[in-house]
Amino acid sequence: MLSLIFRYKAFLVNRAENNPYEQLQQASSAELRQAIRSGAYQGQTAGLASGMLQANLAILPEAYALDFMRFCQRNPKPCPLVGVSDTGVPLMSTLGEIDIRTDVPAYNVYRNGALDASVNDISDLWQDDFVVFALGCSFTFEHALHRAGIPLWHFQEKKTVPMYRSNIATRDSGVFGGETVVTMRAVAAEKVDEAIRISRQYPLAHGAPLHVGEPHSIGISDLYAPEWGDAPPPVDDNIPVFWACGVTPQNAILRAKLPLSITHKPGHMLVTDVDEQAEVPVV
Amino acid sequence: MLSLIFRYKAFLVNRAENNPYEQLQQASSAELRQAIRSGAYQGQTAGLASGMLQANLAILPEAYALDFMRFCQRNPKPCPLVGVSDTGVPLMSTLGEIDIRTDVPAYNVYRNGALDASVNDISDLWQDDFVVFALGCSFTFEHALHRAGIPLWHFQEKKTVPMYRSNIATRDSGVFGGETVVTMRAVAAEKVDEAIRISRQYPLAHGAPLHVGEPHSIGISDLYAPEWGDAPPPVDDNIPVFWACGVTPQNAILRAKLPLSITHKPGHMLVTDVDEQAEVPVV
Repeated sequence: MLSLIFRYKAFLVNRAENNPYEQLQQASSAELRQAIRSGAYQGQTAGLASGMLQANLAILPEAYALDFMRFCQRNPKPCPLVGVSDTGVPLMSTLGEIDIRTDVPAYNVYRNGALDASVNDISDLWQDDFVVFALGCSFTFEHALHRAGIPLWHFQEKKTVPMYRSNIATRDSGVFGGETVVTMRAVAAEKVDEAIRISRQYPLAHGAPLHVGEPHSIGISDLYAPEWGDAPPPVDDNIPVFWACGVTPQNAILRAKLPLSITHKPGHMLVTDVDEQAEVPVV
Repeated sequence: MLSLIFRYKAFLVNRAENNPYEQLQQASSAELRQAIRSGAYQGQTAGLASGMLQANLAILPEAYALDFMRFCQRNPKPCPLVGVSDTGVPLMSTLGEIDIRTDVPAYNVYRNGALDASVNDISDLWQDDFVVFALGCSFTFEHALHRAGIPLWHFQEKKTVPMYRSNIATRDSGVFGGETVVTMRAVAAEKVDEAIRISRQYPLAHGAPLHVGEPHSIGISDLYAPEWGDAPPPVDDNIPVFWACGVTPQNAILRAKLPLSITHKPGHMLVTDVDEQAEVPVV
């Protein structure tokens, strides 16, 4: 019997080693970051460390930090700030025991507004003038919609939510500006009010929708040709609902053509120790 | 009859001129700021421009602005940022047509951490390196508690809410740190949950309480000897409920002994064009 148990355990370990995402399904946020830090896991973070706040990442030289922080303050729906490092310090002390140089599964490195490289560790790129910004992401309110029985197509089909460049201008700050990028989720007409009410409870995850109903009125000419993410299935009788998207600040950073900036690679988020339901993003 | 009406109107105008607070009771936020800007009104703003967001004010040289903004981000309950100016620009474009040099009824000017002067106009003090910070204040959630039928002693008695230095540490940023200052409102036991639920809906006005019940456990030795504001009447069967207070960032600024900083004079707030119920503080 004992040998059977050992053999089953060996089978499980073996299977998990072949599928690190599955191995990490039950991991805490700290265990997940440890696996990322060690290089054992470099994949997407959706569905991992369930219940914990995940965040978009932007790393900029301090010369741009005050303007970027003002940009976020003026555009809180696309850019909900959840953590900011001290200058030159790669730790995010209010979000957990986080070393930002190693604790995100994958990073995009941009030079003069163009993608230069995707890497899994930025220790070699770290600069004494860097400031790290963590921004809330849509996972938080999507989980709340899911719990409320509002189906999300991209969850069910393991697709990426469609994203569009709207004609809703952001409020400028220094070199940062541009249009607001939005995501679309089709919601049954009788559930729209509930979706608004629920998502409004999460100001650190884009809050209530920016627009409900008419894509053209916010500058979206073809709902089925998103600029990023996957094309959605026909909306049919559902109502297209548009939320502010974390690609907005990334877009503002690229538009500004900074000499050097670093973001997370899409889907490869910073996983924090902050509870998704927490009132404030501070551990 | 007509002459009677004229005489009554003249009486009203005369009374209002003698009592500008009463004259401004029905004024919009823009009209109120115009009266302040012109010097016609230099009094407290509680109860004026009903329904509009009022804000605490802090003006600092840019050299301290990024650290102060990080301090606010890390301590969102005492320091809910609702607006930040561009450097050297005295306008608060996201909060209304506001010239911060003239549009607050009274200012306190601090040099090296000590009060230097109280003035009604800071045009002569304005510097090209100033950054203006507006922070949400408790009026917003107090109005919501009042609407819900939760009585507030200091409203009824026209007193100032009692404020205490707690032992709850803030999260430091650069030269900014210190204890969290809290306000106390005594709430009937059966209304405490509702008071928590309501105030949590206002993250830009200090949000949910920091502590409910036991003053000693947060370092308050005598509930009837507040450090600022008026001593409350006996709590009796009510529960003392403690919220984070906007004196916290003021205290952090004074502690830092900046060469020069300017705040509003207590009770003399910045009145914005943002609706108190707005999801985000942007007009």
